[in-house]
Amino acid sequence: MTADSRRAVVLSSGGIDSTTAMAMAVSQGFSVFSLTFDYGQRHRHELSAARAVARHLNAEKHLVLETDFRKIGGSALTADIPVPGTGPVENTIPVTYVPARNTIFLAYALAWAETLDAADIFIGVNAVDYSGYPDCRPEYIEAFARVANLGSKAGVEGRITFAVHTPLIHMTKAEIIRTGAALGVDYSITSSCYDPSPEGLACGLCDSCRIRKKGFVDAGLPDPTRYV
Amino acid sequence: MTADSRRAVVLSSGGIDSTTAMAMAVSQGFSVFSLTFDYGQRHRHELSAARAVARHLNAEKHLVLETDFRKIGGSALTADIPVPGTGPVENTIPVTYVPARNTIFLAYALAWAETLDAADIFIGVNAVDYSGYPDCRPEYIEAFARVANLGSKAGVEGRITFAVHTPLIHMTKAEIIRTGAALGVDYSITSSCYDPSPEGLACGLCDSCRIRKKGFVDAGLPDPTRYV
Repeated sequence: MTADSRRAVVLSSGGIDSTTAMAMAVSQGFSVFSLTFDYGQRHRHELSAARAVARHLNAEKHLVLETDFRKIGGSALTADIPVPGTGPVENTIPVTYVPARNTIFLAYALAWAETLDAADIFIGVNAVDYSGYPDCRPEYIEAFARVANLGSKAGVEGRITFAVHTPLIHMTKAEIIRTGAALGVDYSITSSCYDPSPEGLACGLCDSCRIRKKGFVDAGLPDPTRYV
Repeated sequence: MTADSRRAVVLSSGGIDSTTAMAMAVSQGFSVFSLTFDYGQRHRHELSAARAVARHLNAEKHLVLETDFRKIGGSALTADIPVPGTGPVENTIPVTYVPARNTIFLAYALAWAETLDAADIFIGVNAVDYSGYPDCRPEYIEAFARVANLGSKAGVEGRITFAVHTPLIHMTKAEIIRTGAALGVDYSITSSCYDPSPEGLACGLCDSCRIRKKGFVDAGLPDPTRYV
Protein backbone atom coordinates (compact mmCIF):
# COMPACT_ATOMS: atom_id res chain seq x y z
CA MET A 1 0.00 0.00 0.00
CA THR A 2 1.34 3.44 -0.86
CA ALA A 3 0.37 6.80 0.53
CA ASP A 4 -2.96 8.00 -0.77
CA SER A 5 -1.97 11.41 -2.08
CA ARG A 6 -5.56 12.61 -1.97
CA ARG A 7 -6.06 12.20 1.78
CA ALA A 8 -5.17 14.83 4.35
CA VAL A 9 -5.80 15.09 8.08
CA VAL A 10 -6.88 18.63 8.95
CA LEU A 11 -6.88 19.83 12.56
CA SER A 12 -10.10 21.72 13.12
CA SER A 13 -11.22 23.88 16.02
CA GLY A 14 -14.25 25.31 14.28
CA GLY A 15 -12.57 28.72 14.16
CA ILE A 16 -11.61 30.97 11.26
CA ASP A 17 -8.03 29.74 10.86
CA SER A 18 -8.54 25.98 10.84
CA THR A 19 -11.65 26.37 8.68
CA THR A 20 -9.68 28.37 6.12
CA ALA A 21 -6.87 25.81 6.21
CA MET A 22 -9.45 23.09 5.55
CA ALA A 23 -10.93 25.02 2.63
CA MET A 24 -7.42 25.40 1.20
CA ALA A 25 -6.80 21.64 1.55
CA VAL A 26 -10.05 20.98 -0.30
CA SER A 27 -9.11 23.48 -3.02
CA GLN A 28 -5.79 21.61 -3.47
CA GLY A 29 -7.73 18.42 -4.20
CA PHE A 30 -7.35 16.64 -0.88
CA SER A 31 -10.01 14.42 0.57
CA VAL A 32 -10.25 15.85 4.08
CA PHE A 33 -10.28 13.96 7.39
CA SER A 34 -11.27 16.50 10.01
CA LEU A 35 -9.84 16.05 13.52
CA THR A 36 -11.21 17.93 16.52
CA PHE A 37 -10.39 17.66 20.22
CA ASP A 38 -12.77 17.70 23.11
CA TYR A 39 -10.29 18.73 25.79
CA GLY A 40 -12.68 20.08 28.37
CA GLN A 41 -12.45 23.56 26.86
CA ARG A 42 -14.71 26.22 28.33
CA HIS A 43 -15.92 27.15 24.88
CA ARG A 44 -17.82 23.93 24.12
CA HIS A 45 -19.54 25.69 21.26
CA GLU A 46 -16.41 25.15 19.15
CA LEU A 47 -17.18 21.42 19.03
CA SER A 48 -20.50 21.97 17.24
CA ALA A 49 -18.89 24.62 15.04
CA ALA A 50 -16.19 22.12 14.01
CA ARG A 51 -18.87 19.57 13.12
CA ALA A 52 -20.74 22.17 11.05
CA VAL A 53 -17.53 23.15 9.27
CA ALA A 54 -16.72 19.51 8.40
CA ARG A 55 -20.18 19.17 6.87
CA HIS A 56 -19.95 22.56 5.08
CA LEU A 57 -16.62 21.60 3.47
CA ASN A 58 -17.62 17.99 2.67
CA ALA A 59 -15.00 16.33 4.86
CA GLU A 60 -14.70 12.58 4.25
CA LYS A 61 -14.83 11.98 8.00
CA HIS A 62 -15.00 14.05 11.19
CA LEU A 63 -13.36 12.54 14.27
CA VAL A 64 -13.66 14.01 17.76
CA LEU A 65 -11.07 12.76 20.24
CA GLU A 66 -11.48 13.32 23.95
CA THR A 67 -8.39 14.34 25.82
CA ASP A 68 -8.64 15.83 29.26
CA PHE A 69 -6.19 18.69 29.66
CA ARG A 70 -7.94 19.62 32.92
CA LYS A 71 -6.17 16.78 34.69
CA ILE A 72 -2.90 18.47 33.76
CA GLY A 73 -3.98 22.08 34.29
CA GLY A 74 -1.97 25.20 33.59
CA SER A 75 -4.21 27.28 31.28
CA ALA A 76 -7.06 29.78 31.47
CA LEU A 77 -8.82 27.81 28.73
CA THR A 78 -9.17 24.72 30.86
CA ALA A 79 -8.42 25.69 34.47
CA ASP A 80 -10.00 28.16 36.86
CA ILE A 81 -8.07 31.24 35.75
CA PRO A 82 -10.15 34.24 34.52
CA VAL A 83 -10.08 34.73 30.75
CA PRO A 84 -8.60 38.16 29.97
CA GLY A 85 -11.17 40.40 28.32
CA THR A 86 -9.94 43.97 28.58
CA GLY A 87 -6.81 45.93 27.76
CA PRO A 88 -4.74 45.84 24.57
CA VAL A 89 -3.99 42.53 22.80
CA GLU A 90 -0.66 41.64 24.37
CA ASN A 91 2.42 40.58 22.42
CA THR A 92 3.57 38.18 25.15
CA ILE A 93 2.52 34.55 25.61
CA PRO A 94 -1.00 34.79 27.08
CA VAL A 95 -2.54 32.87 29.99
CA THR A 96 -4.79 31.13 27.46
CA TYR A 97 -1.68 29.19 26.34
CA VAL A 98 -2.26 25.45 26.89
CA PRO A 99 1.01 23.57 27.55
CA ALA A 100 2.02 21.42 24.57
CA ARG A 101 -1.41 21.68 22.99
CA ASN A 102 -0.32 21.73 19.35
CA THR A 103 2.26 19.00 20.05
CA ILE A 104 -0.50 16.78 21.44
CA PHE A 105 -2.85 17.67 18.56
CA LEU A 106 -0.17 17.04 15.91
CA ALA A 107 0.79 13.74 17.54
CA TYR A 108 -2.78 12.49 17.22
CA ALA A 109 -3.01 13.86 13.68
CA LEU A 110 0.12 11.88 12.85
CA ALA A 111 -1.36 8.71 14.36
CA TRP A 112 -4.51 9.09 12.29
CA ALA A 113 -2.59 10.04 9.14
CA GLU A 114 -0.41 6.95 9.40
CA THR A 115 -3.49 4.77 9.89
CA LEU A 116 -5.15 6.37 6.84
CA ASP A 117 -1.95 6.14 4.77
CA ALA A 118 -2.11 9.91 4.41
CA ALA A 119 1.10 11.90 4.07
CA ASP A 120 -0.42 15.31 4.66
CA ILE A 121 -1.43 17.12 7.81
CA PHE A 122 -2.89 20.63 7.76
CA ILE A 123 -2.82 22.93 10.77
CA GLY A 124 -4.07 26.50 10.71
CA VAL A 125 -1.32 28.04 12.83
CA ASN A 126 -0.35 31.60 12.21
CA ALA A 127 2.85 33.40 13.15
CA VAL A 128 1.50 36.91 12.48
CA ASP A 129 -1.70 37.25 14.54
CA TYR A 130 -0.80 34.19 16.56
CA SER A 131 -1.47 35.56 20.06
CA GLY A 132 2.12 34.76 21.06
CA TYR A 133 1.89 30.97 21.13
CA PRO A 134 5.33 29.35 20.74
CA ASP A 135 3.85 26.29 19.03
CA CYS A 136 2.65 28.36 16.08
CA ARG A 137 6.11 29.20 14.71
CA PRO A 138 7.71 27.74 11.54
CA GLU A 139 10.75 26.33 13.39
CA TYR A 140 8.45 24.45 15.74
CA ILE A 141 6.41 23.01 12.86
CA GLU A 142 9.61 21.91 11.07
CA ALA A 143 10.82 20.21 14.26
CA PHE A 144 7.53 18.36 14.55
CA ALA A 145 7.69 17.17 10.93
CA ARG A 146 11.09 15.67 11.76
CA VAL A 147 9.58 13.84 14.72
CA ALA A 148 6.79 12.56 12.46
CA ASN A 149 9.18 11.09 9.93
CA LEU A 150 11.61 9.63 12.48
CA GLY A 151 8.99 8.28 14.89
CA SER A 152 6.56 6.53 12.58
CA LYS A 153 6.63 3.15 10.91
CA ALA A 154 5.58 4.59 7.55
CA GLY A 155 8.20 7.34 7.80
CA VAL A 156 11.06 5.04 8.79
CA GLU A 157 10.14 2.49 6.13
CA GLY A 158 10.18 5.29 3.57
CA ARG A 159 6.62 4.53 2.56
CA ILE A 160 5.36 7.99 3.50
CA THR A 161 7.12 11.31 3.91
CA PHE A 162 4.87 13.23 6.23
CA ALA A 163 4.37 16.93 5.57
CA VAL A 164 2.87 19.38 8.02
CA HIS A 165 1.16 22.10 5.98
CA THR A 166 0.72 25.54 7.51
CA PRO A 167 -0.84 27.52 4.66
CA LEU A 168 -1.77 30.45 6.94
CA ILE A 169 1.50 30.80 8.77
CA HIS A 170 2.55 34.10 7.18
CA MET A 171 -0.92 35.56 6.56
CA THR A 172 -2.60 38.34 8.49
CA LYS A 173 -6.09 37.65 9.81
CA ALA A 174 -7.49 39.84 7.02
CA GLU A 175 -5.66 37.81 4.36
CA ILE A 176 -6.94 34.58 5.92
CA ILE A 177 -10.52 35.84 5.83
CA ARG A 178 -10.21 37.07 2.26
CA THR A 179 -8.70 33.74 1.17
CA GLY A 180 -11.47 31.73 2.80
CA ALA A 181 -14.20 34.02 1.48
CA ALA A 182 -12.81 33.61 -2.04
CA LEU A 183 -13.05 29.82 -1.57
CA GLY A 184 -16.69 30.12 -0.51
CA VAL A 185 -16.29 29.66 3.23
CA ASP A 186 -19.32 30.65 5.28
CA TYR A 187 -17.70 32.11 8.39
CA SER A 188 -21.05 32.53 10.14
CA ILE A 189 -20.83 28.86 11.21
CA THR A 190 -17.34 29.23 12.70
CA SER A 191 -16.63 30.03 16.33
CA SER A 192 -13.64 31.88 17.79
CA CYS A 193 -14.78 33.21 21.18
CA TYR A 194 -12.99 32.06 24.33
CA ASP A 195 -16.03 32.87 26.49
CA PRO A 196 -19.28 32.53 24.50
CA SER A 197 -22.79 32.74 25.96
CA PRO A 198 -24.67 29.48 26.68
CA GLU A 199 -26.39 29.97 23.29
CA GLY A 200 -23.01 30.16 21.56
CA LEU A 201 -22.98 33.90 20.95
CA ALA A 202 -19.52 35.48 20.91
CA CYS A 203 -18.57 37.81 23.79
CA GLY A 204 -16.91 40.33 21.49
CA LEU A 205 -14.40 41.21 24.22
CA CYS A 206 -11.86 38.39 24.56
CA ASP A 207 -8.55 38.50 22.66
CA SER A 208 -9.84 36.00 20.12
CA CYS A 209 -13.03 37.99 19.42
CA ARG A 210 -11.09 41.22 19.09
CA ILE A 211 -8.61 39.69 16.62
CA ARG A 212 -11.52 38.26 14.65
CA LYS A 213 -13.47 41.53 14.56
CA LYS A 214 -10.41 43.45 13.43
CA GLY A 215 -9.79 40.81 10.74
CA PHE A 216 -13.16 41.41 9.10
CA VAL A 217 -12.69 45.18 9.30
CA ASP A 218 -9.20 44.93 7.76
CA ALA A 219 -10.45 42.52 5.09
CA GLY A 220 -13.21 44.96 4.16
CA LEU A 221 -15.82 42.22 4.54
CA PRO A 222 -18.97 42.13 6.66
CA ASP A 223 -18.52 40.28 9.98
CA PRO A 224 -21.16 37.51 10.11
CA THR A 225 -20.41 36.71 13.77
CA ARG A 226 -23.36 36.76 16.17
CA TYR A 227 -22.28 38.73 19.25
CA VAL A 228 -24.12 38.95 22.58
CA MET B 1 9.52 30.77 39.28
CA THR B 2 12.44 28.64 38.07
CA ALA B 3 12.51 24.99 37.13
CA ASP B 4 12.39 22.70 40.12
CA SER B 5 15.45 20.56 39.44
CA ARG B 6 14.16 17.83 41.70
CA ARG B 7 10.99 17.07 39.75
CA ALA B 8 10.79 14.64 36.85
CA VAL B 9 7.88 13.27 34.85
CA VAL B 10 8.37 9.54 34.26
CA LEU B 11 6.31 7.69 31.67
CA SER B 12 5.19 4.43 33.23
CA SER B 13 3.54 1.39 31.68
CA GLY B 14 4.00 -0.84 34.70
CA GLY B 15 6.52 -2.94 32.76
CA ILE B 16 10.17 -3.71 33.39
CA ASP B 17 11.66 -0.90 31.31
CA SER B 18 9.66 2.07 32.56
CA THR B 19 9.88 0.78 36.14
CA THR B 20 13.66 0.61 35.89
CA ALA B 21 13.78 4.08 34.36
CA MET B 22 11.70 5.33 37.28
CA ALA B 23 14.02 3.66 39.82
CA MET B 24 16.97 5.33 38.08
CA ALA B 25 15.25 8.74 38.26
CA VAL B 26 14.68 8.19 41.98
CA SER B 27 18.31 7.14 42.47
CA GLN B 28 19.39 10.39 40.78
CA GLY B 29 17.47 12.36 43.39
CA PHE B 30 14.38 13.27 41.38
CA SER B 31 10.97 13.59 42.90
CA VAL B 32 8.95 11.45 40.50
CA PHE B 33 5.64 12.27 38.82
CA SER B 34 4.43 9.04 37.27
CA LEU B 35 2.36 9.28 34.09
CA THR B 36 0.38 6.35 32.72
CA PHE B 37 -2.05 6.11 29.82
CA ASP B 38 -5.31 4.29 29.67
CA TYR B 39 -5.55 3.95 25.91
CA GLY B 40 -7.98 1.09 25.68
CA GLN B 41 -5.13 -1.41 25.68
CA ARG B 42 -6.08 -5.10 25.79
CA HIS B 43 -3.71 -5.67 28.69
CA ARG B 44 -5.60 -3.62 31.28
CA HIS B 45 -3.53 -5.26 33.99
CA GLU B 46 -0.69 -2.86 33.19
CA LEU B 47 -2.76 -0.03 34.67
CA SER B 48 -2.82 -1.64 38.11
CA ALA B 49 0.84 -2.61 37.74
CA ALA B 50 1.72 1.03 37.01
CA ARG B 51 -0.15 2.13 40.13
CA ALA B 52 1.67 -0.48 42.23
CA VAL B 53 5.02 0.61 40.80
CA ALA B 54 4.34 4.29 41.60
CA ARG B 55 3.59 3.30 45.19
CA HIS B 56 6.60 0.95 45.39
CA LEU B 57 8.99 3.69 44.21
CA ASN B 58 7.37 6.47 46.28
CA ALA B 59 6.29 8.62 43.35
CA GLU B 60 5.10 12.08 44.39
CA LYS B 61 2.02 11.67 42.21
CA HIS B 62 0.58 9.09 39.81
CA LEU B 63 -1.57 10.43 36.98
CA VAL B 64 -3.59 8.25 34.62
CA LEU B 65 -4.71 9.96 31.42
CA GLU B 66 -7.36 8.43 29.21
CA THR B 67 -6.72 8.58 25.50
CA ASP B 68 -8.65 6.41 23.14
CA PHE B 69 -6.39 5.03 20.44
CA ARG B 70 -9.19 2.68 19.42
CA LYS B 71 -10.96 5.51 17.64
CA ILE B 72 -7.87 5.84 15.46
CA GLY B 73 -7.10 2.13 15.06
CA GLY B 74 -4.10 0.59 13.32
CA SER B 75 -2.54 -1.69 15.95
CA ALA B 76 -2.91 -5.20 17.35
CA LEU B 77 -2.71 -3.73 20.85
CA THR B 78 -5.89 -1.74 20.45
CA ALA B 79 -7.71 -3.02 17.34
CA ASP B 80 -9.09 -6.41 16.37
CA ILE B 81 -5.88 -7.86 14.98
CA PRO B 82 -4.61 -11.11 16.58
CA VAL B 83 -1.58 -10.66 18.86
CA PRO B 84 1.34 -12.72 17.49
CA GLY B 85 2.33 -15.43 19.92
CA THR B 86 4.45 -17.94 18.02
CA GLY B 87 7.48 -17.93 15.79
CA PRO B 88 10.80 -16.15 16.35
CA VAL B 89 10.93 -12.59 17.70
CA GLU B 90 10.99 -10.59 14.48
CA ASN B 91 13.44 -7.82 13.72
CA THR B 92 10.88 -5.86 11.71
CA ILE B 93 8.32 -3.39 13.05
CA PRO B 94 5.64 -5.60 14.62
CA VAL B 95 1.85 -5.38 14.29
CA THR B 96 1.78 -4.36 17.97
CA TYR B 97 3.20 -1.00 16.88
CA VAL B 98 0.75 1.79 17.80
CA PRO B 99 1.02 4.78 15.42
CA ALA B 100 2.67 7.78 17.08
CA ARG B 101 2.25 6.28 20.55
CA ASN B 102 5.46 7.61 22.06
CA THR B 103 4.94 10.97 20.36
CA ILE B 104 1.52 11.24 22.00
CA PHE B 105 2.89 10.06 25.36
CA LEU B 106 5.85 12.45 25.26
CA ALA B 107 3.58 15.34 24.26
CA TYR B 108 1.46 14.80 27.37
CA ALA B 109 4.58 14.35 29.50
CA LEU B 110 5.79 17.70 28.19
CA ALA B 111 2.47 19.35 29.05
CA TRP B 112 2.62 18.00 32.60
CA ALA B 113 6.31 18.83 33.00
CA GLU B 114 5.73 22.44 31.95
CA THR B 115 2.83 22.72 34.39
CA LEU B 116 5.01 21.28 37.20
CA ASP B 117 7.99 23.47 36.23
CA ALA B 118 9.94 20.27 35.72
CA ALA B 119 12.71 20.18 33.12
CA ASP B 120 13.15 16.41 33.07
CA ILE B 121 11.19 13.67 31.35
CA PHE B 122 12.17 10.01 31.65
CA ILE B 123 11.09 7.38 29.14
CA GLY B 124 12.20 3.77 29.28
CA VAL B 125 12.73 3.28 25.57
CA ASN B 126 15.33 0.86 24.41
CA ALA B 127 17.07 0.60 21.06
CA VAL B 128 18.54 -2.87 21.68
CA ASP B 129 15.61 -5.12 22.63
CA TYR B 130 13.13 -2.57 21.37
CA SER B 131 10.91 -4.86 19.29
CA GLY B 132 11.58 -2.72 16.22
CA TYR B 133 9.61 0.38 17.20
CA PRO B 134 10.85 3.46 15.31
CA ASP B 135 9.92 5.76 18.19
CA CYS B 136 12.47 4.11 20.50
CA ARG B 137 15.57 5.36 18.67
CA PRO B 138 17.98 8.08 19.85
CA GLU B 139 17.48 10.28 16.78
CA TYR B 140 13.74 10.25 17.37
CA ILE B 141 14.15 11.19 21.04
CA GLU B 142 16.51 14.05 20.09
CA ALA B 143 13.98 15.31 17.56
CA PHE B 144 11.27 15.29 20.20
CA ALA B 145 13.43 17.21 22.68
CA ARG B 146 13.80 19.89 20.02
CA VAL B 147 10.01 20.05 19.64
CA ALA B 148 9.70 20.35 23.43
CA ASN B 149 12.02 23.32 23.64
CA LEU B 150 10.67 25.12 20.56
CA GLY B 151 7.00 24.47 21.25
CA SER B 152 6.66 25.35 24.92
CA LYS B 153 6.32 28.65 26.72
CA ALA B 154 8.93 27.71 29.32
CA GLY B 155 11.34 26.55 26.61
CA VAL B 156 10.95 29.62 24.41
CA GLU B 157 11.21 31.97 27.39
CA GLY B 158 14.45 30.20 28.35
CA ARG B 159 13.06 29.39 31.78
CA ILE B 160 13.39 25.63 31.29
CA THR B 161 15.52 23.55 28.97
CA PHE B 162 13.62 20.32 28.67
CA ALA B 163 15.60 17.09 28.62
CA VAL B 164 14.23 13.72 27.58
CA HIS B 165 16.15 11.06 29.50
CA THR B 166 16.44 7.59 28.04
CA PRO B 167 18.69 5.83 30.57
CA LEU B 168 17.94 2.38 29.11
CA ILE B 169 18.39 3.21 25.47
CA HIS B 170 21.62 1.25 24.96
CA MET B 171 21.06 -1.49 27.55
CA THR B 172 20.12 -5.09 26.89
CA LYS B 173 17.11 -6.46 28.75
CA ALA B 174 19.49 -8.33 31.07
CA GLU B 175 21.38 -5.13 31.91
CA ILE B 176 18.09 -3.34 32.57
CA ILE B 177 16.97 -6.08 34.96
CA ARG B 178 20.33 -6.16 36.77
CA THR B 179 20.29 -2.36 37.11
CA GLY B 180 16.79 -2.33 38.56
CA ALA B 181 17.48 -5.26 40.87
CA ALA B 182 20.56 -3.44 42.22
CA LEU B 183 18.29 -0.45 42.95
CA GLY B 184 15.88 -2.66 44.88
CA VAL B 185 13.10 -2.94 42.27
CA ASP B 186 10.58 -5.69 42.95
CA TYR B 187 9.81 -6.90 39.43
CA SER B 188 7.06 -9.23 40.64
CA ILE B 189 4.66 -6.26 40.64
CA THR B 190 5.46 -5.28 37.06
CA SER B 191 3.54 -6.46 34.01
CA SER B 192 4.82 -6.94 30.47
CA CYS B 193 2.43 -9.39 28.82
CA TYR B 194 0.46 -8.31 25.75
CA ASP B 195 -2.22 -10.93 26.39
CA PRO B 196 -2.55 -11.72 30.11
CA SER B 197 -5.25 -13.89 31.69
CA PRO B 198 -8.23 -12.16 33.34
CA GLU B 199 -6.40 -12.59 36.68
CA GLY B 200 -3.37 -10.76 35.28
CA LEU B 201 -1.13 -13.80 34.80
CA ALA B 202 1.34 -13.50 31.92
CA CYS B 203 0.80 -15.67 28.83
CA GLY B 204 4.50 -16.53 28.53
CA LEU B 205 4.15 -16.73 24.75
CA CYS B 206 3.85 -13.21 23.31
CA ASP B 207 6.91 -11.31 22.10
CA SER B 208 6.95 -9.20 25.24
CA CYS B 209 6.83 -12.24 27.58
CA ARG B 210 9.56 -13.98 25.63
CA ILE B 211 11.85 -10.95 25.75
CA ARG B 212 11.16 -10.63 29.49
CA LYS B 213 11.83 -14.33 30.20
CA LYS B 214 15.07 -14.27 28.25
CA GLY B 215 16.10 -11.10 30.13
CA PHE B 216 15.92 -12.82 33.52
CA VAL B 217 17.78 -15.86 32.18
CA ASP B 218 20.52 -13.66 30.68
CA ALA B 219 20.71 -11.56 33.87
CA GLY B 220 21.18 -14.73 35.91
CA LEU B 221 18.33 -13.71 38.20
CA PRO B 222 15.17 -15.63 39.16
CA ASP B 223 12.10 -14.60 37.12
CA PRO B 224 9.39 -13.54 39.61
CA THR B 225 6.70 -13.31 36.89
CA ARG B 226 3.51 -15.30 37.49
CA TYR B 227 2.75 -17.17 34.27
CA VAL B 228 -0.49 -19.00 33.45
